[in-house]
Order: sequence, then structure tokens, then C-alpha cells
Amino acid sequence: MLALQDVRDAHARIRDKIHRTPVLTSETLDAHCGGSLYFKCENFQKIGAFKARGATNAIFLLPDAEAKRGVVTHSSGNHAAAVARAAKLRGIPAYIVMPHNVPKAKQDSVRRYGAKIEFCEPTIAAREAAAARIAGETGAPLIHPFNDYRVMAGQGTATLELMEDHPQIDLVLCPIGGGGLISGTATAAKGLKPGIRVIGVEPAGADDAYRSFRSGAIVPMTAPRTIADGLRGMLGDKTFAEIREKVDDVVTVSEAAIVSAMRSMWEVLKIVVEPSAAVAYAAVVENRVNVAGKRVGVIVTGGNLDLDALPWFSEVL
Amino acid sequence: MLALQDVRDAHARIRDKIHRTPVLTSETLDAHCGGSLYFKCENFQKIGAFKARGATNAIFLLPDAEAKRGVVTHSSGNHAAAVARAAKLRGIPAYIVMPHNVPKAKQDSVRRYGAKIEFCEPTIAAREAAAARIAGETGAPLIHPFNDYRVMAGQGTATLELMEDHPQIDLVLCPIGGGGLISGTATAAKGLKPGIRVIGVEPAGADDAYRSFRSGAIVPMTAPRTIADGLRGMLGDKTFAEIREKVDDVVTVSEAAIVSAMRSMWEVLKIVVEPSAAVAYAAVVENRVNVAGKRVGVIVTGGNLDLDALPWFSEVL
Repeated sequence: MLALQDVRDAHARIRDKIHRTPVLTSETLDAHCGGSLYFKCENFQKIGAFKARGATNAIFLLPDAEAKRGVVTHSSGNHAAAVARAAKLRGIPAYIVMPHNVPKAKQDSVRRYGAKIEFCEPTIAAREAAAARIAGETGAPLIHPFNDYRVMAGQGTATLELMEDHPQIDLVLCPIGGGGLISGTATAAKGLKPGIRVIGVEPAGADDAYRSFRSGAIVPMTAPRTIADGLRGMLGDKTFAEIREKVDDVVTVSEAAIVSAMRSMWEVLKIVVEPSAAVAYAAVVENRVNVAGKRVGVIVTGGNLDLDALPWFSEVL
Repeated sequence: MLALQDVRDAHARIRDKIHRTPVLTSETLDAHCGGSLYFKCENFQKIGAFKARGATNAIFLLPDAEAKRGVVTHSSGNHAAAVARAAKLRGIPAYIVMPHNVPKAKQDSVRRYGAKIEFCEPTIAAREAAAARIAGETGAPLIHPFNDYRVMAGQGTATLELMEDHPQIDLVLCPIGGGGLISGTATAAKGLKPGIRVIGVEPAGADDAYRSFRSGAIVPMTAPRTIADGLRGMLGDKTFAEIREKVDDVVTVSEAAIVSAMRSMWEVLKIVVEPSAAVAYAAVVENRVNVAGKRVGVIVTGGNLDLDALPWFSEVL
């Protein structure tokens, strides 16, 4: 299992390679929900998402002999950019497998760091197969986007900073895709403050973690339907074990709540966030979690999206 | 003239009533321009703009006997919300004169604080006449949006914080509307660091300060044509005197540069800024100021705009 010390070690390792992101508050949003919300703004992180934390930790933990062959990963976007950037910082090649339908902004974000992209079909099986093939050909180790303790530890550093800035927080809301972020989040939060509650939030259209949490076994996700493109992955064995042990509950939110939460964050907080990054706050908007009177950390995961395709201009919700 | 001590006193007076806003940096934007940019993000300020600073300082400086009659002002938007909020904090009435064509988001922002709105024609003469009439009827003092030392001192507190966080800054870029912000900015910056340069930036379509600065006398602005709705005001006698004394240069930027700068700030910095708030950075984008090798403070003024009317969806630039 992941330990608080792993997260602390990760923070010491990466802190000069990432941003310490600001925490924003809003009287307006607090008045709407009756709680005190602390938005940890990882949309301001390097590469525009928290994924910079985990990938940097994993890549800087590699022994030189292993690192020199480069690294390979598969990702729908932000982890890809994070691996590309961290590999560039370390001076090693990066091989990235991406589904061919990822937004162009996320492709550009990878190319900028000089990584090699290989496109595949948008299924988890196709991604894993392509990454395994490249790993075999090059000898480069796989940096899994979430089911990897080095990555999970790195993601937890956001909550380490959040709790250091606002130790009064008594509840943390965190989105769940593959579970890497919430594994690190719960480990950091509960390690620092055992009585704190950690609740995972998923789009109802990609609710594998919700169903897995309730059934006690990993429920595969086959056809996710959600605007939150960063949350279409399914849990891994390591992240599921962390979630079962450390997360208090998992709730789901509708697509309408995600878009509404996203728009409120743009209008009131004045931050550009991608749909996946609005999912934790959507649980407040949709009243899936009672936050009245509570001090609530809300993990805002990223801000990479196409400004020409904003959901409130779309007819297809 | 305004003095550094006025700005320091203002900060002590208002610091528990405003946000200390974050300063964002971006390797990507730095690489584009060859300088190091420090964006002081007043879009995260209370009411979504730096105007909260000046209005709060002015209203909390009023003697009780004067304050009890309330306050009156005229504004195209952000100052109106700032006066409404500060008056509510002090527990006194606020009377706000607004042009009838201000964006709905800015009207709502005033109503939320319980102020009384009176609409007028969108000319400076009409605004001033309506405000003078209300002041006469109620006995409420006018809180001018910029030509007031209490307001100017408050606006300067953003730069006080910026220079405290990043004392290495050697150039500050600041938009000019009526000149209240740049008066406080230049007073704070030069008071703290005499060798620093302060450059004002204006839309070419509302270039009264540019022409006034060059001619040595206030040039009236009659028909401003710019998307930067917060910068359509013209200089006052007090702000012009500050600018002549303390500002090193005034440059202008095109409408296309404003929109391009705004979009870059959304895409790369992940912040929601209104067009007026992109004007200082537009001077970098359009190469109107040489920032290569410099440490540059960029004042980002506000983030209040209608998300249904973004300029990159508009055909009419």
C-alpha cells in the first residue's frame, strides 16, 4: 500500500520541477452550498494538469541504467504531456501511445516536449498493446498513467500542499478516472489527518469505480459516455486496493451537473478548467455530497481543452 | 501627488477585506517573448477585478458622519460592483449610475450587493450628470472611479503585493483607462524601486492617454472603439499629473492583439480574463515593448465577461 512517507518523498523530489499551485476560495460559491470550499487549482500546474506530479516523480525515480532507454506510456492526454515533459527534463526519450481522437490541444502539448507519438484505437486494450510492443522494442520502462505507486505518490503531493495551506479541511472531493489521483489524495489526507473524509466523484456515464467500490471487485468499463474525457479510464488493481482501504465513499454526477459546475468555475472563480476538472465540484452543485458547515478541499485537476468547442455552445448534451 | 505611504496605508486598511491575489508564471509564454513575465491576477480579486481595492480604501476612509448618507458613483461596471460591495461591508447605501449597455454579468454583480442602479446614456457627460444629481439629492459623497487619491492609493496595493512577492521585477506593464490603476501602480513601483520602469498600455481605439502623454495636455476621448470596455474612460486631472510624473511611456495595441493576448491567457495561463485585462500582455504579443531579458510585471485587471459572447466566436473584429 501507498504510505504518507511515499508522498512526502515524492514532494521533496519534484517540488523544484513543478508549480506549487494556488488554492482559490469564493464567497459566492460558499454561499450557494453552505460550506467553505478550497479549490486546489492543478489547472495551473505544469502541462496544465496534476499529472505533471506523478510522471515527474516516476521518471526521476528511475535508475540511470533504466532511464537511458527512455520511457513509454499510453494516455488520453495529460499524462502523456506530463511524461513528455519529465522525460525532457531528465534528458531521455519518451514514446507516447495516444488514442487518435484526443483533442488537438493535448496532442500539441505532447509534441512541444519532443516526444514521439504513436496513435491507436480509442480502447484500453489497443493502448496497452501498443505500449507493450514499444516497450519490448526499445527496452523503455512503462510509466503507467495511474496503476503505479510512483505515480500515485506524485499525484498525492497536491493534497500535501493543500492540507499544509489549509489544515482545517475536513472533507476532500476528488474525481476518479483510473484512480491514481484519489489514491495519492486519500493517502496524503488520511496520513496527515486520520479523521478527514475523502469522497471520490465519477461521471455517471463512466461509473466503473462507483460500481467497483460498491461490489467489492473491479467492474470493467467498456463504453464510457461522458464529456469528462480524462475520466474514461478504469481502475487498476493497485488503485482499487487503495480506494477500498482509504476512500469513504464514491458518488456519481450527471453530464448536466459537470457542465454547470464547469461554467460556474469559469464565471465565478475565473479559471479555465476542462470538464474532468469540474467533476468534484459537480458533486456539490448536484447535492451528491452534503457540504453544509464543512471545510471542503476540491481537487481541480486540469485546464487543457479546445476553446473553440466549449460545452455551453453545444446542442448535444 | 500620491505617495508610497498612501499606498502602504491603503494596504493596511483593506488587506483583510480583499484577496491577496496569486502571481502566475508560464515557461511557455516566457519562451515566446524572451522575458520573464509575472502576471498579477486581479481577475481573482473580490468582485473579479482590482477595482475592489480602490473602492474599499475610499469607502473605509470616509468619516462616519459622511458615510452614513451612503455613497454614489458612476462606472461601466467593475468599479460599480466594487463600490456596492465595499458599501455593503461598511453597512451603508450605494447609488450606482451605469450606462445602459454594460454587460449583464456586470449589472448582476452590482445587484448582488444590494446597491441601487440608475441607468444612463453611455457617455461620460451623462454619467457625471446623473451621479451629481443623486449626490445632490442624497448628500452621499461621490466615489469617483479613478480621479480620487483614495481610489488611486487602493489600486496601487496590487503592485505593492506584486513587488513584495517578486522584488526582481524591473518593468511593469499596466493598462490605462481613466488612469487610476496606473497612478497607484507607478507610485508603488517607483516608491519601492526607483530604477523600475512603468509602461502604460492602451487600446489604439481608445488612445486618449497615449495622445495626452505625448502632447502634454489632456486630449479628450469622444468615441472610443475597442472591445476593452473597461478602458473606454478618459484621464482625469489628478491621474494625468501622476502619469506625466511617474510613467515612462505609453504604448497602444490593436484590437487583434488584445483578442490574441486574451486567448493565450485563457489557453496557456488557464485564467478567465476580460478583454481589458489582456491589454497589458497584448503589448508583449504585439511587440510594442521590448521585454527580452527583463523581469516584467503584467497587471491582469479583471475577469468579468459574458461567456456566451467570447470574441473568438465573433465575426466583427
